[in-house]
Amino acid sequence: MIRNKLKQAWAEGRPTLNGWLSIGNPFTAEIMAAQGYDSLTIDVQHGALDYSALLPMFQAMRASGVVPLARVPWLEPGIVMKALDAGAFGVICPMVNTAAQAAEFVSCLRYPPLGQRSFGPTRASFSAGDNYAAEANDEFLGFAMIETATAMENLDAIAATPGLDGIYVGPADLTLSLAKGRLAPGFDREEPEMIEALQTILAACRRHDIRAALHCGTPGYAARAIGWGFDMTTVSGDSRLLAAAASASVKAFREATSGEDGKPGTPGVTGGY
Amino acid sequence: MIRNKLKQAWAEGRPTLNGWLSIGNPFTAEIMAAQGYDSLTIDVQHGALDYSALLPMFQAMRASGVVPLARVPWLEPGIVMKALDAGAFGVICPMVNTAAQAAEFVSCLRYPPLGQRSFGPTRASFSAGDNYAAEANDEFLGFAMIETATAMENLDAIAATPGLDGIYVGPADLTLSLAKGRLAPGFDREEPEMIEALQTILAACRRHDIRAALHCGTPGYAARAIGWGFDMTTVSGDSRLLAAAASASVKAFREATSGEDGKPGTPGVTGGY
Amino acid sequence: MIRNKLKQAWAEGRPTLNGWLSIGNPFTAEIMAAQGYDSLTIDVQHGALDYSALLPMFQAMRASGVVPLARVPWLEPGIVMKALDAGAFGVICPMVNTAAQAAEFVSCLRYPPLGQRSFGPTRASFSAGDNYAAEANDEFLGFAMIETATAMENLDAIAATPGLDGIYVGPADLTLSLAKGRLAPGFDREEPEMIEALQTILAACRRHDIRAALHCGTPGYAARAIGWGFDMTTVSGDSRLLAAAASASVKAFREATSGEDGKPGTPGVTGGY
Amino acid sequence: MIRNKLKQAWAEGRPTLNGWLSIGNPFTAEIMAAQGYDSLTIDVQHGALDYSALLPMFQAMRASGVVPLARVPWLEPGIVMKALDAGAFGVICPMVNTAAQAAEFVSCLRYPPLGQRSFGPTRASFSAGDNYAAEANDEFLGFAMIETATAMENLDAIAATPGLDGIYVGPADLTLSLAKGRLAPGFDREEPEMIEALQTILAACRRHDIRAALHCGTPGYAARAIGWGFDMTTVSGDSRLLAAAASASVKAFREATSGEDGKPGTPGVTGGY
Amino acid sequence: MIRNKLKQAWAEGRPTLNGWLSIGNPFTAEIMAAQGYDSLTIDVQHGALDYSALLPMFQAMRASGVVPLARVPWLEPGIVMKALDAGAFGVICPMVNTAAQAAEFVSCLRYPPLGQRSFGPTRASFSAGDNYAAEANDEFLGFAMIETATAMENLDAIAATPGLDGIYVGPADLTLSLAKGRLAPGFDREEPEMIEALQTILAACRRHDIRAALHCGTPGYAARAIGWGFDMTTVSGDSRLLAAAASASVKAFREATSGEDGKPGTPGVTGGY
Amino acid sequence: MIRNKLKQAWAEGRPTLNGWLSIGNPFTAEIMAAQGYDSLTIDVQHGALDYSALLPMFQAMRASGVVPLARVPWLEPGIVMKALDAGAFGVICPMVNTAAQAAEFVSCLRYPPLGQRSFGPTRASFSAGDNYAAEANDEFLGFAMIETATAMENLDAIAATPGLDGIYVGPADLTLSLAKGRLAPGFDREEPEMIEALQTILAACRRHDIRAALHCGTPGYAARAIGWGFDMTTVSGDSRLLAAAASASVKAFREATSGEDGKPGTPGVTGGY
Repeated sequence: MIRNKLKQAWAEGRPTLNGWLSIGNPFTAEIMAAQGYDSLTIDVQHGALDYSALLPMFQAMRASGVVPLARVPWLEPGIVMKALDAGAFGVICPMVNTAAQAAEFVSCLRYPPLGQRSFGPTRASFSAGDNYAAEANDEFLGFAMIETATAMENLDAIAATPGLDGIYVGPADLTLSLAKGRLAPGFDREEPEMIEALQTILAACRRHDIRAALHCGTPGYAARAIGWGFDMTTVSGDSRLLAAAASASVKAFREATSGEDGKPGTPGVTGGY
Repeated sequence: MIRNKLKQAWAEGRPTLNGWLSIGNPFTAEIMAAQGYDSLTIDVQHGALDYSALLPMFQAMRASGVVPLARVPWLEPGIVMKALDAGAFGVICPMVNTAAQAAEFVSCLRYPPLGQRSFGPTRASFSAGDNYAAEANDEFLGFAMIETATAMENLDAIAATPGLDGIYVGPADLTLSLAKGRLAPGFDREEPEMIEALQTILAACRRHDIRAALHCGTPGYAARAIGWGFDMTTVSGDSRLLAAAASASVKAFREATSGEDGKPGTPGVTGGY
Repeated sequence: MIRNKLKQAWAEGRPTLNGWLSIGNPFTAEIMAAQGYDSLTIDVQHGALDYSALLPMFQAMRASGVVPLARVPWLEPGIVMKALDAGAFGVICPMVNTAAQAAEFVSCLRYPPLGQRSFGPTRASFSAGDNYAAEANDEFLGFAMIETATAMENLDAIAATPGLDGIYVGPADLTLSLAKGRLAPGFDREEPEMIEALQTILAACRRHDIRAALHCGTPGYAARAIGWGFDMTTVSGDSRLLAAAASASVKAFREATSGEDGKPGTPGVTGGY
Repeated sequence: MIRNKLKQAWAEGRPTLNGWLSIGNPFTAEIMAAQGYDSLTIDVQHGALDYSALLPMFQAMRASGVVPLARVPWLEPGIVMKALDAGAFGVICPMVNTAAQAAEFVSCLRYPPLGQRSFGPTRASFSAGDNYAAEANDEFLGFAMIETATAMENLDAIAATPGLDGIYVGPADLTLSLAKGRLAPGFDREEPEMIEALQTILAACRRHDIRAALHCGTPGYAARAIGWGFDMTTVSGDSRLLAAAASASVKAFREATSGEDGKPGTPGVTGGY
Repeated sequence: MIRNKLKQAWAEGRPTLNGWLSIGNPFTAEIMAAQGYDSLTIDVQHGALDYSALLPMFQAMRASGVVPLARVPWLEPGIVMKALDAGAFGVICPMVNTAAQAAEFVSCLRYPPLGQRSFGPTRASFSAGDNYAAEANDEFLGFAMIETATAMENLDAIAATPGLDGIYVGPADLTLSLAKGRLAPGFDREEPEMIEALQTILAACRRHDIRAALHCGTPGYAARAIGWGFDMTTVSGDSRLLAAAASASVKAFREATSGEDGKPGTPGVTGGY
Repeated sequence: MIRNKLKQAWAEGRPTLNGWLSIGNPFTAEIMAAQGYDSLTIDVQHGALDYSALLPMFQAMRASGVVPLARVPWLEPGIVMKALDAGAFGVICPMVNTAAQAAEFVSCLRYPPLGQRSFGPTRASFSAGDNYAAEANDEFLGFAMIETATAMENLDAIAATPGLDGIYVGPADLTLSLAKGRLAPGFDREEPEMIEALQTILAACRRHDIRAALHCGTPGYAARAIGWGFDMTTVSGDSRLLAAAASASVKAFREATSGEDGKPGTPGVTGGY
């Protein structure tokens, strides 16, 4: 069976870079897979896609060798297992707030006797290599997302869950929950209370010898997180990268062509075709 | 019927910026439609998509008010008319090499007695507004692409085609053809012979009072083209913008996290999942 | 952020008309969006569609300004939140039988501190306008469906759920459950016991100052319901409208062309192609 | 092989009713197939669909026994043959203006020695029954559309094309072309010149012993056409039926609920979600 | 309403053969539906597909008369009911480990007063025939899968669930669970402990007068299972049949063309296109 | 750029085995790509698929290293070039009957100055490796199909077309045409006149130093063809392999379970669900 390169990298002390796929399209997946990420996560939770897009996206990513991951919409066994059968080498589960939820999540990732995953790697048996049944339990990663005040209260118990591979931090939700809506959601937090929360999570991961991952908005913040000790960071994602690049291109054109103010005459923003 | 904003802009002496869609997905189309382009062209020729993607993409772009255009794969009446029925407010036709081809193309865009377009704007009648049958002939644009040595020889006759709205220049193909393969294809040409070709085309458009459009790779070159007198320029496109933005993000992360050389240990480029 | 026109209409004392989408297709959605409904609900429960169709349908409806709603298949957080992220301005949840279920449902619709919705309006942030994080909690509607005998028993407690915007009545299921299968399911009930049940629900909504909505089969019955005090009614839906209109057209042709009995010779109903 | 019920009906002197599919969806196709039409034509020309939708639509229609037909976008051998391989029992070809075009079209429908159709009924061999290779030439219908002034000039030669089964009249295009744009396009023409044109076509069909078919907008006009001698009429189609039925339903609700004028307060027609 | 042919066959003492669909495609479904299976199950759990593929597959199977079944991904009411509304005549539910789960599953299959199924057979009302509301409860089958050690402990209680039609045995999971990972998963078990488990399940089904079904890998083992008394067996499935047939064809060609060893020179297994 | 392994194999004197894809699905493509074929051809002509399926199928095949080919529906530049841009390493063109057609076909495959292919390898530039523009002309194969009596008359002129890589024989059509319908179409011909035709074609290929390929139905016949000197043979294809394997499995089950005659009681072949 193909080895999980994320586990190999971490074993060598090398932090990894994860990319994020919110567009439900195999061509954007293939493009992203060519850019040098260590792993790419298809976001079935907030991404504009579902399982029907995930499958051809995993297929389109396969040749690149990038590690395929999926974030599921919720802690529901059906979709966790379908993501693995489709070829995921790891699953990120949102809103894990208690140790019981963490244990339930982990059980969905492992075949008996370690868990309750049902056997039927219909597509994965083509993409993951030989000896799947015997080795899958060892290769696939499970990340529980810590993103609420409740989860912070249960942090140590969650991190202690047998078989859990790591914690993935969603800063937007964590901020909303910890600050009770006082702070706007978003990545790359600078508030001391939020940085402290990140450090607390990191420490819990170290204490229980599991991996810590952080969703970031910029390479610079991600590098800081790596410096703090995070094993994996995600930097932005396909839909944001595209929007930002196109916006910058339009702005550059408008500035270069429209005299002093950089504004077009009357850009088309109302009406419709 | 909704007015064609490109015609309005040009009538006001304002050059326009066209975006380019090569990804067959309505969400990327909706993202691109929010960035301030005057028009967006779905590339059914070289884009990774066909009619089945074009339709929901036009729908997803509609609310933005951006002018929807399509480039067809080849001069074939079926797809030209289908693009219009799906809601295109203009069509770009590749490889128009003779005046006869230009006339054939234009005839596909207009209802009798001006042309041979067949009536049945099944989706367009919902998106284009009232009075479609009477006004469509006036609102929709036809651009013939000049991109071969043969086309250059027939330039004046092509530009003189009654009803043709403009010429769209494909610099990659034009370079391959004019230089007989001696120069690599690509946009934003700097060779004197290519710049001269662009100026020749521009002059023909002026002589016949039609619009001139140029496919560019960067906002800077596009601004130069506007300065030369082009009415419309395209700058890059969704797939290139995404690839470049993701590549830059990965590079920035690698440089910020890996000591002196900016290289990751061993990024995943072989094998497969 | 764009205002929810349903809330505006009700604040002005104007009842609203909801349309129903059971066909998984963006073109039928665009057609329906042009007919003057105040809102259109994509039925992910009983409709012949799932999330993969909902997304392009919401995109195709956007230009019309009709309020986009979704009915989810079941009280499952994953799909409730995905519908919102895709652009729904309200969610109808079937089979809400207890106050605890109503509270769980409402919590999925609101960001902390009001609820547990996870932040990531990937597509909605393009379609819903600025200031999404701050205003979404106020704009999006949550309707709990009352459609079982158990729900009727818990009606007052359900209607009292903080944050619940309204109750949506499904007459087919409610009839099956209240009559224990004695009455055939269907809309536009005339049985005194069923009309009494509707009045009971309406009274509970008034008591708790929330909205009441009813699924109807005909404009006439809907008008009666509005007269009773319902704030919103749904009248039929795309698949039924199409089937009825086509059937009537065929019947009219047969009657006009086949002598006395209005029957075709041997219409093709068996065998296959 | 399954017999073509249209041929059987006509042999028995029974005119047939054709339905029209412009929505690219197998569920609408299945709904339409249940309404009692003799045949259903998938409109790949003006319909909001292409081959990728046609295939599952033919599959969804199969159980009903309705005769599956396709209108192709243009006289192009590739799509004519693909429609047959997908299961069509007949093809309608638009814009047949000359006898040479009619002959080219017919040749695409028949295997050698009668024509140039290429053998490979990949899906049709499952749906059309045994003995396909030997019997297909006899069962499949070819209709050439007469819809231009040029076609009217060549009417007799077109109708005389060996192997052509019938002429299908597109009144919208024919009106545009004959009236040189003076009359608006549309069905159910009442102008004497247009009725005369229909009679001329009918007479040519009778003279050459082929079938005559007319696209109509209402059952009443279709019945008149049957009275004139047409063998097949199409009445409206899925997208128009749906739009009309929904519009009527909304209007009925508005009239029943809004006092004297039948107008809603401010129906949502601008802005967007 | 159409009768469930599986129930008819079993009533006549005739065991039935079920086929298995793991490929999400209506054409493969139509091909499989032509091969003479009594029923075909679309595997929404381990198959490479979800609801969006299930719907057109059921449509493509309809004309054949084969009984359409679905295996759902997990015991989740939303998807169980959606499968029925899409036209399933029976549902197989994985991982039913307790009597409470079995009861919950059965309740999703039946309308009140027998269960909690919600009424809205949007597509099924077209495919299943008249009188749906009254007869559906009687015609649709519910199979609970016994595939864990826990389920074996609760076997008798599960089999006693009122309204449950049968037990479907998943030998791969059952082996993993009973042997605690000591034995590799797979079908067609020969270990005495596994055969004993099958017999135990069979006896429980007989005791409670419900049907017993077994997933098999080969016709031979299936015949043995029929001999033991199983009412239904599944033999292999589309993806395995295709892979095995193609592999055998390649091997036969290589042996026939490459001298002594039957190996090609260097088959393409690395790199990529 | 990645080398074309077919050219490498032939240069080494090794005949190759081509597989055939008629099912429009990326999972079946991925399954087929794992079976050891040298190349796989997506049949856009007779296959139940079009470009919208071809693209994700090529993506799903990429990791395997199998050479991706496409057969286009007809000699039409648009689809030939789209297949190449999507990643094809070769194109098979049906019904090439004259030297002019062969030259037109070849011109679509090559960039200037060798041909008229338009530059824009949008997806291919990700899958085919570096240096695409410079090397594509050398790597991609063009096969003209000889399958009519007319083509046989022009065989020598066709085979002499500069830049043509080979001739692909379609025995079904060739039989229909040469025998004027007297012989049923099909592969693996045994009639002396057909075998002679194959030998004639093979000789023409040898004379002009191009490759000869034959579509076969069985490994045995393919091996004979290799023995005659064919460079490439296709053996059956996905839809036929699946149908035959499933049919054989059903038959084996019926024989093993139903007493003497091997027939089930009344297999479901009529009616419908």
